Amino acid sequence: MSNKGITPRSESFSKWYLDIVEKAQLAENSSVRGCMFIKPYGYAIWENMQRELDKRIKATGAKNAYFPLFIPKSFFSKEASHIKGFAKECAIVTHYRLKESEDGKGVVVDSDAKLEEELIVRPTSETIMYDTFSRWISSWRDLPLKINQWANIVRWEKRTRPFLRTTEFLWQEGHTVHATKEESEREVLRALDMYVQFAKEVLALDVYTGRKSESEKFAGAINTYGVEALMQDGKALQFGTSHDLGQNFAKAFGISFTDKDGESKYPWQTSRGVSTRMIGAIVMSHSDDLGLVLPPRIAPIKVVIIPIYTDDTKEEVIKYCQEVTEDLEKLVDGIELDSRDFQSPGFKFNEWEKKGVPIRIEIGKRDIDQGKIILVRRDTSEKESVDKEEIGSRVLAILEDIQNNLLNKSSEILKLGTHTVESYDEFKTLLKGKKGFIKALWCGSVECEEGIKYDSKATTRCYFGEKDGKCIYCGKQAHEEWVFAIPY
Amino acid sequence: MSNKGITPRSESFSKWYLDIVEKAQLAENSSVRGCMFIKPYGYAIWENMQRELDKRIKATGAKNAYFPLFIPKSFFSKEASHIKGFAKECAIVTHYRLKESEDGKGVVVDSDAKLEEELIVRPTSETIMYDTFSRWISSWRDLPLKINQWANIVRWEKRTRPFLRTTEFLWQEGHTVHATKEESEREVLRALDMYVQFAKEVLALDVYTGRKSESEKFAGAINTYGVEALMQDGKALQFGTSHDLGQNFAKAFGISFTDKDGESKYPWQTSRGVSTRMIGAIVMSHSDDLGLVLPPRIAPIKVVIIPIYTDDTKEEVIKYCQEVTEDLEKLVDGIELDSRDFQSPGFKFNEWEKKGVPIRIEIGKRDIDQGKIILVRRDTSEKESVDKEEIGSRVLAILEDIQNNLLNKSSEILKLGTHTVESYDEFKTLLKGKKGFIKALWCGSVECEEGIKYDSKATTRCYFGEKDGKCIYCGKQAHEEWVFAIPY
Repeated sequence: MSNKGITPRSESFSKWYLDIVEKAQLAENSSVRGCMFIKPYGYAIWENMQRELDKRIKATGAKNAYFPLFIPKSFFSKEASHIKGFAKECAIVTHYRLKESEDGKGVVVDSDAKLEEELIVRPTSETIMYDTFSRWISSWRDLPLKINQWANIVRWEKRTRPFLRTTEFLWQEGHTVHATKEESEREVLRALDMYVQFAKEVLALDVYTGRKSESEKFAGAINTYGVEALMQDGKALQFGTSHDLGQNFAKAFGISFTDKDGESKYPWQTSRGVSTRMIGAIVMSHSDDLGLVLPPRIAPIKVVIIPIYTDDTKEEVIKYCQEVTEDLEKLVDGIELDSRDFQSPGFKFNEWEKKGVPIRIEIGKRDIDQGKIILVRRDTSEKESVDKEEIGSRVLAILEDIQNNLLNKSSEILKLGTHTVESYDEFKTLLKGKKGFIKALWCGSVECEEGIKYDSKATTRCYFGEKDGKCIYCGKQAHEEWVFAIPY
Repeated sequence: MSNKGITPRSESFSKWYLDIVEKAQLAENSSVRGCMFIKPYGYAIWENMQRELDKRIKATGAKNAYFPLFIPKSFFSKEASHIKGFAKECAIVTHYRLKESEDGKGVVVDSDAKLEEELIVRPTSETIMYDTFSRWISSWRDLPLKINQWANIVRWEKRTRPFLRTTEFLWQEGHTVHATKEESEREVLRALDMYVQFAKEVLALDVYTGRKSESEKFAGAINTYGVEALMQDGKALQFGTSHDLGQNFAKAFGISFTDKDGESKYPWQTSRGVSTRMIGAIVMSHSDDLGLVLPPRIAPIKVVIIPIYTDDTKEEVIKYCQEVTEDLEKLVDGIELDSRDFQSPGFKFNEWEKKGVPIRIEIGKRDIDQGKIILVRRDTSEKESVDKEEIGSRVLAILEDIQNNLLNKSSEILKLGTHTVESYDEFKTLLKGKKGFIKALWCGSVECEEGIKYDSKATTRCYFGEKDGKCIYCGKQAHEEWVFAIPY
């Protein structure tokens, strides 16, 4: 069964995704190529994610700050491998003034107002932040330094898709500086774990996580660890990364500190981030042909109450619904009474289903007379009739249950969607069919990685563990099992 | 008495301001001209302002959303007077790709990657939002539409000062669309009132508020209302504006709706905003020669506890301070125990004074033996000795009292700093001396306004009320009293 305007997944997963983004009113394309508007409902989901994650970030001792949007072009040349990764497709500011056109009807760029050095709209903030850190840090007492920034980011993408890949997106980027290698390495894994717990507890997403290959790691990092979720079409979505930057940037930006032993040393750094891409992950993991399905912890509206009445019963039903609304508001945020009188209950059911509201409450005259209230769960479509006195405790219990159910389903999908293969034929067959995560041995050579990508579009997603045997691609000795998938 | 590193106000108000911004660790200049870093302590103040204001914004029925950073150049030509106001000093993106330089050591702009139409980094979002609104709005049922955005903004300023005027700043911009002129006009005043209440209740700032003159209003608006505070040097700081846009933008961007009567109509619009400039207003209103003074409601740290010990008493004193910290944390957020053992109590007193922490608690061995705790208020420097059992209730009472005291002082400063004058000589004398707000009759002509500005740097800040008499400048008949001041 599918809702009007939503292409079934079986017909086109990609159209289904765009339909959900549109019909759930999450975002829409703008007049600026590759940039989206995040609509109020989509933005409210982001605010809920932010609030939950910000608490966890602050609990690690990090503090929020704000660094400039613009980065001088020369900063990108300071760390050699960072150039290759980021000095590519980005928005470049070259002028600082417009003037009225000669006919007075429009504006043109004032060619006299050319910048001496072009400014790059930040594609990530390592360079601009670390230039500052070099002035902030002088002693071991200044360490560890843990800074987080919530900001907009621009990467000039050729092919864009709302939330998954857009020219501008919103994110959180964390940057830490440590006195020792050990502390810095611990921090990288701690940040990774924070994202994994956030994914499970808040987004209801089970994930794979691990070290990235050389070719997939962050430009300028020693190691990158990724968080990888499985989408319903069998493709992987990376929605968080945690980077071990070693001393690469410290050396490039001249960050040094006097240690307890009086020696001047380069500190060890990490960075990490997650973005509005998580909204795309939510859509493609939990949702169905009826529309969006939201984990209650990030749902802007957790319960919608829909009165069902005739002209005769309208007043009584609405009044009753208002009472229920007020009672529930004492227990939980995000209660919405939909009393619009120009839409039918059926229309409303559809609309809130599309928007993924976890619980729908229906109240009609007969229910009132019987002291009952009808609850419908968005995740299973199960309907139940509850005594009015028990509505509060039932709502709380069902919200908790939906949150757990979605996580369990996600774990199940991850488990069923993971295949361990021993032959390359099996590998290719899977990727032509149901896809998913594939665990296979890889010798670690870039040639094999590229060969696999060329054949199947699959890339290494993350390291899984030690295992001896033969490389799936070249057949030479291999000692590591890796998770492969076709990525978004 | 002044703290080390802080220039007394009597010596140089402008240096004093920069010293506070630096020593309280609010912000610092970056390597990008006119752009500042907002440091963690400054950003925490902004977060507190945001949280308090966001609640009030949502209470008006507005919803947060996010619109693109970039605006196509042609959008600025659509509303004729908006061109003149905003199509001036702004950051212009002309290219979308960098490439490695021929020597491989740096990056250069790829001249093949020139945009067909330049993009402007938003100096405000009317144009990009209203282009979208024209697609969102079709019926009277879609109105009122109330959208708020928290975002970064870029205006290429020639002379910059941290928080007061920077190339990039953070702000909140609210945009509403209404079916009728009356509703829209009410909304403009309601937003203005929201800012005034926020200023009083949260920032502890008393203000003047009123309609702006033709030359001071927002480019494209019918009317602008401003919120004006008086700084300690007698200059005015405008920190919030609320605009009545009439149907100007609706016509320019083709926003129309079908009304209840079936007719297609242009809606009426408003916009308003406040920015990180408010942090500058706080510094210049409340602070003193010892450093920053913060209203408790926006103070990131409300109470700092400083243990005073010898080697013998250290363990006992620290343990006691930890207990007090835990007790206070149950009552109020923002309790900080400063147990750094490499700084003296005197150094700590100074540091927290500079950072404007409302209450300092000092605890030594003798205080513990006597069951007493020493409290020092930042606003008055008053010291009191409190029984340990009463510490919680005293802290809460003093925080409330500091908040009220700062507002009362602000009202007093506003009252004492406002002068009603009847001669232009008196007007000029005041502006050469103690400055302040000057109430005077003005005939409304641009020539008089410009003449006054030329003579004294003072501009009309806002309309005050009806009054008959002679224009302070030209001597002709005037019917309106206006508030003048030298603005930041």
